[in-house]
Amino acid sequence: MDAPTDATTDATTETPTDAATGDAASTAPRVPRTVDWAGDHLVVIDQTRLPDELVLAQLRTVDEVIDALRRLVVRGAPAIGVTGGLGVALAAVVGRRDGGGPDAVRRDAARVRAARPTAVNLAWGVDRVLAHLDDGGDLDEVATNSLVAAAVAMLDHDVETNRALARRGAELVRSVVPDASRVRVLTHCNAGGLACVEWGTALGVVRALHEDGCVAEVFADETRPLLQGARLTAWELAAMGVPHRVVVDGAGASVVARGLVDVVIVGADRVAADGDVANKIGTYPLALAAARAGVPFVVAAPESTLDAATPTGDAIEIETRDPEEVLSWAGRRVTPPGSGAWNPAFDVTPHDLVTALVTERRVVLLAAGETL
Amino acid sequence: MDAPTDATTDATTETPTDAATGDAASTAPRVPRTVDWAGDHLVVIDQTRLPDELVLAQLRTVDEVIDALRRLVVRGAPAIGVTGGLGVALAAVVGRRDGGGPDAVRRDAARVRAARPTAVNLAWGVDRVLAHLDDGGDLDEVATNSLVAAAVAMLDHDVETNRALARRGAELVRSVVPDASRVRVLTHCNAGGLACVEWGTALGVVRALHEDGCVAEVFADETRPLLQGARLTAWELAAMGVPHRVVVDGAGASVVARGLVDVVIVGADRVAADGDVANKIGTYPLALAAARAGVPFVVAAPESTLDAATPTGDAIEIETRDPEEVLSWAGRRVTPPGSGAWNPAFDVTPHDLVTALVTERRVVLLAAGETL
Repeated sequence: MDAPTDATTDATTETPTDAATGDAASTAPRVPRTVDWAGDHLVVIDQTRLPDELVLAQLRTVDEVIDALRRLVVRGAPAIGVTGGLGVALAAVVGRRDGGGPDAVRRDAARVRAARPTAVNLAWGVDRVLAHLDDGGDLDEVATNSLVAAAVAMLDHDVETNRALARRGAELVRSVVPDASRVRVLTHCNAGGLACVEWGTALGVVRALHEDGCVAEVFADETRPLLQGARLTAWELAAMGVPHRVVVDGAGASVVARGLVDVVIVGADRVAADGDVANKIGTYPLALAAARAGVPFVVAAPESTLDAATPTGDAIEIETRDPEEVLSWAGRRVTPPGSGAWNPAFDVTPHDLVTALVTERRVVLLAAGETL
Repeated sequence: MDAPTDATTDATTETPTDAATGDAASTAPRVPRTVDWAGDHLVVIDQTRLPDELVLAQLRTVDEVIDALRRLVVRGAPAIGVTGGLGVALAAVVGRRDGGGPDAVRRDAARVRAARPTAVNLAWGVDRVLAHLDDGGDLDEVATNSLVAAAVAMLDHDVETNRALARRGAELVRSVVPDASRVRVLTHCNAGGLACVEWGTALGVVRALHEDGCVAEVFADETRPLLQGARLTAWELAAMGVPHRVVVDGAGASVVARGLVDVVIVGADRVAADGDVANKIGTYPLALAAARAGVPFVVAAPESTLDAATPTGDAIEIETRDPEEVLSWAGRRVTPPGSGAWNPAFDVTPHDLVTALVTERRVVLLAAGETL
């Protein structure tokens, strides 16, 4: 993984080892929030450095926020939604200091909004805070504080949302697995506390089940090319004290086919109006394997990930990232000199393969024909 | 990848760069044979060193042969079949020199046969040469030469087999794709010349199509954990001059779903009597994606990979390899200290998902109900 270039970094007092020794059943966060507001700038966990070291990055300019989003210093649909909102607040704080007006804030907000295309939460977070900006007025203290307050409110809202979602998801999972006291889960990428402000969506469901002592094992797909599963989900599971094994992405379908899990739970980056789900590349084949095996395939995502304006999965813009993420490892080429790569960051799972979509408000049984 | 420890290595005069500049349409081998016999020992391309350097390993003892098989210095079902046969010849040559008899050769053969469990070709190759050993007689020059001759005959036989298979496969592919003049292929792992003595099975079909100038593009799954796709298939495609892109394994299903290929072609490590196919981990989800998209899923394998003694895929022993292959990269841990891994080397694709099985002798339309 690349080291941060623009953002100021700051080694914290907590190490992954400290985190891993935390009380498994405790709900208190063992690590700082994934995204937070520090009075006049953002503080985020630099996820490119995990699991080796827990480092906080200070984002003091809008460009640093955009860079952190693009390089996946902060990633995960809910987390980048909140980061988008805080990015608008930062634009206002910086704009006011530098003598800018509402137009400058809008221009910065548009740049933050465009930093990554697939997760609808980013646009949602930006727009939610931007709605508090009055074009007619000056960018005075009252106006700026209003934007900051709206953005900061998203932090606690995200945590409350995820807890509600996780409780609902845990209840659903208990109702669909053979033995609710020993649930075995497969997940993909990271939809944990690191993908949100804290707590998590898909991994939040696991966390809720684990609090009740009924998680037997979690299989975590490593999630190439950036290994969010091997690096981040494994780190969170270790910190929770949940028994887990990492598998290569190609083995996920075998985990399902060989009866090693009772349920597949993943997050989402955007859910289209018909229920089609965009999520990290490699999700779709798990849904195919789950459907064939009769294993429930559950998508856990907040309402803010639902996008009524996008009719179907085909209409979701899929981010294509740098081929070097595939071709190289730690700066070293693994492929021959002449080889290229195609690096889509997400795939689309058709709604007929989604047993249940769980949000903080509802459970929608998409495969059974329910609609959003 | 590990460097060889036991086997003597020998940098050759040819480099990958030399190979990559070879005439695309030429059928002459641009590199040494993957496996060969050098009078009294084996010479194999050390595939753990590709694509960085083309290095030959000299295998002078049965232990070195077993180590090369286990560490995937030589891999690919047809190649390890021939290596198994040559391993028995080596056991005879060494046994005769050291004053051993037929019993010693049988013991060594049993050890070679057990080096890896999934590919039936290994047992096939060992048994085929061992059949020439007369228990009653001495291990004299005539007896030893008889075993060596039987093993060496497997080299040319493998090449002839693959060429016949490739011709048949190319004909089949032309008949099932929309535009036979611009075929777009997805493949997984490496079923090329490096998986055989030369030429290849699945990639042999691509090679045959490419000779006729009708391959538009090949997508190669990188094939974690050991990257046989990114390292070996990409290297072979570059050497052939075939346009290609590497994708992470999780993206293979998207390549199919998004209409980027006309056919999926893979090799096999064992085909059960009912047509179920064991192949490199990550093959099964491609078959699921192909079936859903209506894209033909073709398995290219010699008759020696068919195992009439194994009734179904469930009965195939799947090799589980060292978790470190998943947890670490180039000797460096990528997962947290407490995380484990599950590392199955193969998966099983049910026969109803296999559009066609192509061997050197026949095409079997398994998904359409034809049987072996």
